[in-house]
Amino acid sequence: MEKFEPVAANGLLDRRAFLRGGTALAAAVTGYTFTKAASAEPLADAPWSREIGSATPTVQTPSRFEKQVVRTRSNPNNEPRNSHARTPHQFLQGTVTPASLHFTINHGGIPDIDPAQHKLVIHGMVRQPLVFTIETLSRYPMVSEMHFVECGGNSAPMFSNEPIQATVQALHGLASCSEWTGVRLSTLLDEAGVDPKAKWFIAEGADSPALSRSIPLKKGFDDAMVALYQNGERLMPGNGYPMRLLLPGYEGNMNVKFLRRIKLIDQPSMSYYESRTYSQILPGGKAYRFYFLQEVKSFITHPSFGLALQGPGFYEISGIAYSGTGRIAKVLVSADGGKSWGEAALQEPVLPKSFTRFRMPWRWDGRPVILQSRAWDEGGNVQPLRAEFVAQRGETKKPPNPLAFPNQHYNSLTSWAIDSKGEVKHVYA
Amino acid sequence: MEKFEPVAANGLLDRRAFLRGGTALAAAVTGYTFTKAASAEPLADAPWSREIGSATPTVQTPSRFEKQVVRTRSNPNNEPRNSHARTPHQFLQGTVTPASLHFTINHGGIPDIDPAQHKLVIHGMVRQPLVFTIETLSRYPMVSEMHFVECGGNSAPMFSNEPIQATVQALHGLASCSEWTGVRLSTLLDEAGVDPKAKWFIAEGADSPALSRSIPLKKGFDDAMVALYQNGERLMPGNGYPMRLLLPGYEGNMNVKFLRRIKLIDQPSMSYYESRTYSQILPGGKAYRFYFLQEVKSFITHPSFGLALQGPGFYEISGIAYSGTGRIAKVLVSADGGKSWGEAALQEPVLPKSFTRFRMPWRWDGRPVILQSRAWDEGGNVQPLRAEFVAQRGETKKPPNPLAFPNQHYNSLTSWAIDSKGEVKHVYA
Repeated sequence: MEKFEPVAANGLLDRRAFLRGGTALAAAVTGYTFTKAASAEPLADAPWSREIGSATPTVQTPSRFEKQVVRTRSNPNNEPRNSHARTPHQFLQGTVTPASLHFTINHGGIPDIDPAQHKLVIHGMVRQPLVFTIETLSRYPMVSEMHFVECGGNSAPMFSNEPIQATVQALHGLASCSEWTGVRLSTLLDEAGVDPKAKWFIAEGADSPALSRSIPLKKGFDDAMVALYQNGERLMPGNGYPMRLLLPGYEGNMNVKFLRRIKLIDQPSMSYYESRTYSQILPGGKAYRFYFLQEVKSFITHPSFGLALQGPGFYEISGIAYSGTGRIAKVLVSADGGKSWGEAALQEPVLPKSFTRFRMPWRWDGRPVILQSRAWDEGGNVQPLRAEFVAQRGETKKPPNPLAFPNQHYNSLTSWAIDSKGEVKHVYA
Repeated sequence: MEKFEPVAANGLLDRRAFLRGGTALAAAVTGYTFTKAASAEPLADAPWSREIGSATPTVQTPSRFEKQVVRTRSNPNNEPRNSHARTPHQFLQGTVTPASLHFTINHGGIPDIDPAQHKLVIHGMVRQPLVFTIETLSRYPMVSEMHFVECGGNSAPMFSNEPIQATVQALHGLASCSEWTGVRLSTLLDEAGVDPKAKWFIAEGADSPALSRSIPLKKGFDDAMVALYQNGERLMPGNGYPMRLLLPGYEGNMNVKFLRRIKLIDQPSMSYYESRTYSQILPGGKAYRFYFLQEVKSFITHPSFGLALQGPGFYEISGIAYSGTGRIAKVLVSADGGKSWGEAALQEPVLPKSFTRFRMPWRWDGRPVILQSRAWDEGGNVQPLRAEFVAQRGETKKPPNPLAFPNQHYNSLTSWAIDSKGEVKHVYA
């Protein structure tokens, strides 16, 4: 029956099984995952098949059996500090993150903004300062694009010098992906008329910290967007309602939420967040300044910590890859801790600066393995191996101290060790 | 300043304004939509900028200022008949429908299914009947695809011989679009081993009506999917949790929710829904049998009934186009009731059997206009004009009786008349 030779050690199968259609794939998986039905008819009726169901609500919410599929929070009591909520990637599939589960970080809680009162001002080094309401902004031509947003501090636990036993949500949950709809910032900048001496702009939010960042004007004229909608509906309050700056591929904090000001300037303002929190401290004590790009990255979500395998047989290994540079070009998967690699299938359409779901057919024989993924982008950039990455960027001592730098822009590999019982551990390999 | 000649009457502008980048577009829109800011600095602080915001929740929900963005329901008290909930297209943008707002129709309420107890049986004309749990099904290779689902009865009010004054939600709200993730049915059919004499299969749900439909086996081996996820998370209860059949491009009712049975058969079963409700009655009293395809269609969502224009100037006309045959090839827009047409820009990526957002730059001079859209698909199919459509399919008398056939598979044009005050009416033109 076996038509698919392994492409790498420990049971990784040829991704072309996906391409050749059902029959080829069935040959690869046959006999591993189903149960034969001795007697199918009549089907037994479950309780819910014997009674009228509930009323159809105006807004659908998930089943009560999905209560574990929520964001985990760093500050549930809203104490006076920042609040994180992380996306549960281990329970999700595909590439879209539901808006309800999109990650968020708020530095002064979530403001309750009346969209009829909110205004966006564009001023500074412009010919004519302008002010926009939601209504006037909504008359401009719009674009809809699928893009990830990732916190510069996503994956900070990976800087620990001992692997932390935690879910992919805890490790990598500060990245999410939505279809964003809004107005190109370039359209608004052209309306205002930019002074040729302007080189940067400040984006400022209407939340109580008035969070602000300096952004190169070149990005403003490239693919920056003032986003009004997220996955078809208005932005969620935690994602910047009623409008946010979207800078595809740049670190999350720069995608200023609750956007109220774009001020054109000739040099960066050295605001709090760009000069302190979001500077990458290096092993020698120096720091990267203006390190904006979220570089090429991937991690396996299925299987992952907390999702034990139910015995030997066929499984699909799948995960998420993305790059702030553009499209994902290739993802390799290893089941032997990086000694041999096979190429994963990429779910089409592969979009720039967006999540790409990768999938790898795998037959597990029940012996211990170490799963890893490694991504390349269309710019030729590749995820660094851990040893390379740590040598350049450093790591923290155990137990990790949240104030112990470095903690920014981790984009090296994630390794899941599976033991003979199917339990998954986080390891460095 | 004007660089863009109209491409059709009443102010429709060249869609290439979108393609040439911000500067060209700004020239087309300059001076029409913004307000000059006399004195920008310091910005006045709104109340929400002066206080700490609210705690970050585990699950984000929309702003309290978006309470109007809900589904409208036909049976809020869950009386013993079917229940519809319609998508509010007039408030949405882009192409993804949030799962919370995806349309649904339930014939016996929404069942409360325990996914750990739910099973899918594949039997009938197969070599080996099989039974799948969520767990075993989830080990198979998956695909993620963006697809619309549309009720065969969507747009039924358009059969009225007088135009009904209603929102795009009321007229066309039984169509929505999601990223669906699941297992190709062909993979499962190959596992079971199909008898060459089998030509159809019955799909049956676990809801109390045990809703069932007969489906050509060819579709089962084509792009049919057993879907487990919708926009990244598990299916919503109203959309078939924990699993549904997805038949891209086929009428919604066939995409059997709460899927518990696939039975292979040699001829259609003539079940209730295929022989009664979802037969298209024609003017001569005959009916279309097995009319599965949702044909090429489009409608303008912005502006539309209930969304009045706020004075002359630049606007973006936008709407949704889709076809059960494949990709949208072209959408034309008219502002003079169909006498002249200009080509709309299509938002990339244009995906098969998925919503495509079209956009048309427009400068309204304040005089009455009639807006229409008309779509073509890659198979060369085109939305029929209303006169052609009504001649073939009939129309109902006023006031429309929901039991007065015909009411299925409307795919002709929708016309919005805008008066000099900016009010939008539904007209036939």
